Amino acid sequence: MTDTISLAAPGTEGRSTNRRGGPVSPSTSLLTPLDSSEIHLTKGYWRDWQRTNAEVVLLHCETWMERIGWTSNFDRAASGETGWQHSGIEFVDSEIYKLLEGMAWELGRGGDPELNARYDSLVSRVAAAQDPDGYLHTSFGRSWQRPRYSDLEWGHELYSFGHLIQAAVARIRTVGHGELVDVAVRLADHLYETFGPDGRVAVCGHPEIEPALVELGRALDEPRYIELAGLFVERRGHGLLKPIEYGQEYFQDDVAVREATTLRGHAVRALYLASGALDVAVETGDQELAHAVEQQWRHTVATRTYVTGGMGSHHQDEAFGVDHELPPDRAYSETCAGIASTMLSWRLLLQNGDSAYADLIERTLLNNVMASPREDGRAFFYTNTLHQRVPGTVPSEVDINARALSSLRAPWFEVSCCPTNVARTLASVELYFATKTDDGIQLHQYGDYDVHTTLADGTPIEFSVASGYPFDGRVTVTWRRSTGRSVDLRLRIPAWGAGAVLSLVGEQPRSVDADHAIVSRAFEAGDTVQLDLPMEARWTTPDPRIDAIRGTVAVERGPLVLCLEETGGSVNDVVVDTDEPLWTTDRGAGVTVRDISTVDPAWPYGDAVPAEGPGRHAMLVPYATWANDGPSTMRVWLPRG
Amino acid sequence: MTDTISLAAPGTEGRSTNRRGGPVSPSTSLLTPLDSSEIHLTKGYWRDWQRTNAEVVLLHCETWMERIGWTSNFDRAASGETGWQHSGIEFVDSEIYKLLEGMAWELGRGGDPELNARYDSLVSRVAAAQDPDGYLHTSFGRSWQRPRYSDLEWGHELYSFGHLIQAAVARIRTVGHGELVDVAVRLADHLYETFGPDGRVAVCGHPEIEPALVELGRALDEPRYIELAGLFVERRGHGLLKPIEYGQEYFQDDVAVREATTLRGHAVRALYLASGALDVAVETGDQELAHAVEQQWRHTVATRTYVTGGMGSHHQDEAFGVDHELPPDRAYSETCAGIASTMLSWRLLLQNGDSAYADLIERTLLNNVMASPREDGRAFFYTNTLHQRVPGTVPSEVDINARALSSLRAPWFEVSCCPTNVARTLASVELYFATKTDDGIQLHQYGDYDVHTTLADGTPIEFSVASGYPFDGRVTVTWRRSTGRSVDLRLRIPAWGAGAVLSLVGEQPRSVDADHAIVSRAFEAGDTVQLDLPMEARWTTPDPRIDAIRGTVAVERGPLVLCLEETGGSVNDVVVDTDEPLWTTDRGAGVTVRDISTVDPAWPYGDAVPAEGPGRHAMLVPYATWANDGPSTMRVWLPRG
Repeated sequence: MTDTISLAAPGTEGRSTNRRGGPVSPSTSLLTPLDSSEIHLTKGYWRDWQRTNAEVVLLHCETWMERIGWTSNFDRAASGETGWQHSGIEFVDSEIYKLLEGMAWELGRGGDPELNARYDSLVSRVAAAQDPDGYLHTSFGRSWQRPRYSDLEWGHELYSFGHLIQAAVARIRTVGHGELVDVAVRLADHLYETFGPDGRVAVCGHPEIEPALVELGRALDEPRYIELAGLFVERRGHGLLKPIEYGQEYFQDDVAVREATTLRGHAVRALYLASGALDVAVETGDQELAHAVEQQWRHTVATRTYVTGGMGSHHQDEAFGVDHELPPDRAYSETCAGIASTMLSWRLLLQNGDSAYADLIERTLLNNVMASPREDGRAFFYTNTLHQRVPGTVPSEVDINARALSSLRAPWFEVSCCPTNVARTLASVELYFATKTDDGIQLHQYGDYDVHTTLADGTPIEFSVASGYPFDGRVTVTWRRSTGRSVDLRLRIPAWGAGAVLSLVGEQPRSVDADHAIVSRAFEAGDTVQLDLPMEARWTTPDPRIDAIRGTVAVERGPLVLCLEETGGSVNDVVVDTDEPLWTTDRGAGVTVRDISTVDPAWPYGDAVPAEGPGRHAMLVPYATWANDGPSTMRVWLPRG
Repeated sequence: MTDTISLAAPGTEGRSTNRRGGPVSPSTSLLTPLDSSEIHLTKGYWRDWQRTNAEVVLLHCETWMERIGWTSNFDRAASGETGWQHSGIEFVDSEIYKLLEGMAWELGRGGDPELNARYDSLVSRVAAAQDPDGYLHTSFGRSWQRPRYSDLEWGHELYSFGHLIQAAVARIRTVGHGELVDVAVRLADHLYETFGPDGRVAVCGHPEIEPALVELGRALDEPRYIELAGLFVERRGHGLLKPIEYGQEYFQDDVAVREATTLRGHAVRALYLASGALDVAVETGDQELAHAVEQQWRHTVATRTYVTGGMGSHHQDEAFGVDHELPPDRAYSETCAGIASTMLSWRLLLQNGDSAYADLIERTLLNNVMASPREDGRAFFYTNTLHQRVPGTVPSEVDINARALSSLRAPWFEVSCCPTNVARTLASVELYFATKTDDGIQLHQYGDYDVHTTLADGTPIEFSVASGYPFDGRVTVTWRRSTGRSVDLRLRIPAWGAGAVLSLVGEQPRSVDADHAIVSRAFEAGDTVQLDLPMEARWTTPDPRIDAIRGTVAVERGPLVLCLEETGGSVNDVVVDTDEPLWTTDRGAGVTVRDISTVDPAWPYGDAVPAEGPGRHAMLVPYATWANDGPSTMRVWLPRG
């Protein structure tokens, strides 16, 4: 215990390469991801959710898709019957694939035999529907269906294939090869044949195939897949897709990826594409492309992102708005966009280690993605509004719901991309928590988990992380085994964590004023490192260029964005008194509000000043937990009195 | 000249009935509309626009529809050929009909022989396409098309028929019967047969047939048409239309018209329906229904209307938002909704004479509807944003454009309802300016026009109105002929007109502090009445419940809403200093603004306060005239410094 705490600038660790890992496994990166055998959740917030996912969400998705015929599309495709009617919108195959990906991650932790049997059964049904040449889609290509690749703008064929491939990659990265991997390889080979260097010069209207192909190429050492992903990335932005009402920007076909300066258009499309572009850049050493993606991320985070991490300002086209166009009430902020944002931030984090990426992952997972599932795991938000003015209508628990409901969570949607996306993310969420280098280990996300890995030279790394995160700010790392040599334990200090205190046994606690702390030493079994992050509730004010929330303030506590929710009254008739102190509660915060009464004018543009009542206390709760008690009104941004 | 000025409460004049009139001619009303032989624009703003409409807009619409095959749909339908492909979306017939309505009003003022020949030719082509049983639609009913009435949700068949009937009514109300009237009668008889008391219980997804049938019934003394309109009104709100993603509210099929308390859903649909419902209520003496519509208007104006009079807050479904959901940047504020709002307000005004209806007509025509046409009459806004953050892309002048462009006006759209709606409105706009009763005459809108009519007892009414409206506030009424007996000249005082001064020769000018003034006397030829409305620019602040514009202020001058427009710089980086005085210019106003410079943060939610530069002068221009000098940025609501 002789080493001292050192604070290092980011980007000083040495690069290492490793083909194992989680959902992303770059062949070269500053930080090396851990695989699912190296990190395990042990308790607390994330373990509880992962258990709910395993026990409820996966089965919920499977049951719904079986009931409404999305799964049996594969059976009918395999049967060779003619003329059958496809169930659901044309890209519902992809929901089965995202479910399979979630199951694969879950099975990677062992899983139960019953889940394993369900997984095998589903995979067999998918595999049976594959055409001899590798093509596999239940709503295109048969005599009574539209021809293959006849509607690249809206058909989502390659998008669906991407999710199949991602599911196969999850299998490779956990238990190894299997039937779905063989299916994915045949499909990828078909794609290379069809769209490769000697094939058709085209792209899919919805990106997703790009990161999938790179991951499959990485997992199987197959450069052709990476080459094809590169072709798809380079082709986009040159108007290959037919014009649509929303403009070519909608599917990022307006500007070449390497020339774009911001994410734009349909948010999920933009984020999947940027993820794939960075993957290609990493594998090909394309610094220009990597720099372009990083610049797009920075611009988007600075000007087109909600305080919850949510992305997408338009309901109409599920798209980013222009800079600073961030209406809280019409926030689309799609759950899938939050997941896609996490995918992109994680890729950037692996490359350069900047805490800002992990900060956004923390914010987005806890406040956007985790706002989606209902407490019981049986209903989901598709969009994630930041202001619900009227109590919403209650969605059907038995019928399929329209997609853009913001008022209450729904069990299933016509376009039901979010539930399965949440499922695959929860099943693999711990893989975004920590990384390693040759020199040590980096903790990016906090919770309760064990790490058990080795560095490149064989140095054993075994420790437990304990915390009450995200509700408590104390994080304790306890080493379970001596490292034998000095290693670097790097701890992210969130941007909101000014005043964080690091404590080691036998040393004076000291405050940390950087975006991370590094403890370098030869750790002994039993050594502890304690980080205390400030959990006092704090005011957050918006950039004045975000017109839609001018004159308001939000409250955050630790990593959580809070909100005011009213199941009885309305959140629309109060202002918050920011001269009165905030106080911190177990899970949220208290503020002083004043009721305003405004005469109801015949015409709302004049010079009426509302009358403010006396101050009263109001409790704010974590935004992600709202709408778990029936219809309510809610707002994140509170008008200042 | 012995009478004195008297100020009366609204609603005291006697009811009269008259079948003549303009677009609306109720069989009973407090105020009687004038017909197109009784009022004529003479010069100024409205005459200039009506001339542009006659000389440019009508031909523009006709030429476009001929070029892109919308007109020849009728020729092909008439030819009996099979298998031809219909041009344009399924309801483009309606654009021909709105053009015919505009032509009819224009021809009602005489028109030129060439326009008359074009009109007759178009009517003949339409008439030739009518089926023997009266049905007339170019995209339904043939063997290779969808069957008649097989898609009431989206097919817009009855909507299109409504516009045909309105065009026929315009012909009846101007030059009398004609070929199109015969077509309309056969069509209406077919509709009565198909959907009447012994027919199918159904409604069309897009209202419009309702007011059209009532007007045809009024024009031809045919109660069956009014009966059918009543059936359509009563059937709506009971879920007869199949569910859609936007909810039944979208087409007002969620709540019965007489039970609804606000307009909601798709704005144009809601406003056309309310217009038809009021028409039915008037003809059937249904006080409950009339009261419901009036209440819906009041609630909507108080909580769901833009300062420009624009209605519709959502791009996604072209719909009203909830109360106080009025984003300036995503204002849909469709031109057609402004026209529909004017239709509704005019109907209410005729019934109870309240100046508030005429106030909204003034505001909506001058600031929403007239924002649509470009100065040259060859391009139009479909939506009317109140905040353009980035200079828009330039729409094509030769190709059909997507509908919801807000950046610059476009010559034609895929859904091109607005240009022809502007055309029919401009062609008949003076018919919304004045009314009469047995006792006198009421001036609701100001401009330059002559009135030449008689009261029920034969009293001659002849006078000229001169003004520089909407840029100058002096309105002078000069009588051209002695009335012989005392009549009431009622002048609306706009809600913004506090401090208005009324002057009569030989009397002391006096200020008017009511919503109208009445001058009662036996007027002599040469008598003048002068009204001076205050035209100093004024600050307008929003109701604090309109979250999207909290902390901002607008500037209005007379009837015009002003805006800040920048063709070079950006409107996004300034605040206005409301402690500095406003000053009034010829057409707009001047304000003191400060440039704000905000450090570009990596994350836009913190506590950065922008630095404000020194005050400088900035000129505001009428909102309706923006975007006539190429791409620009613009905002109506200015952040307060």
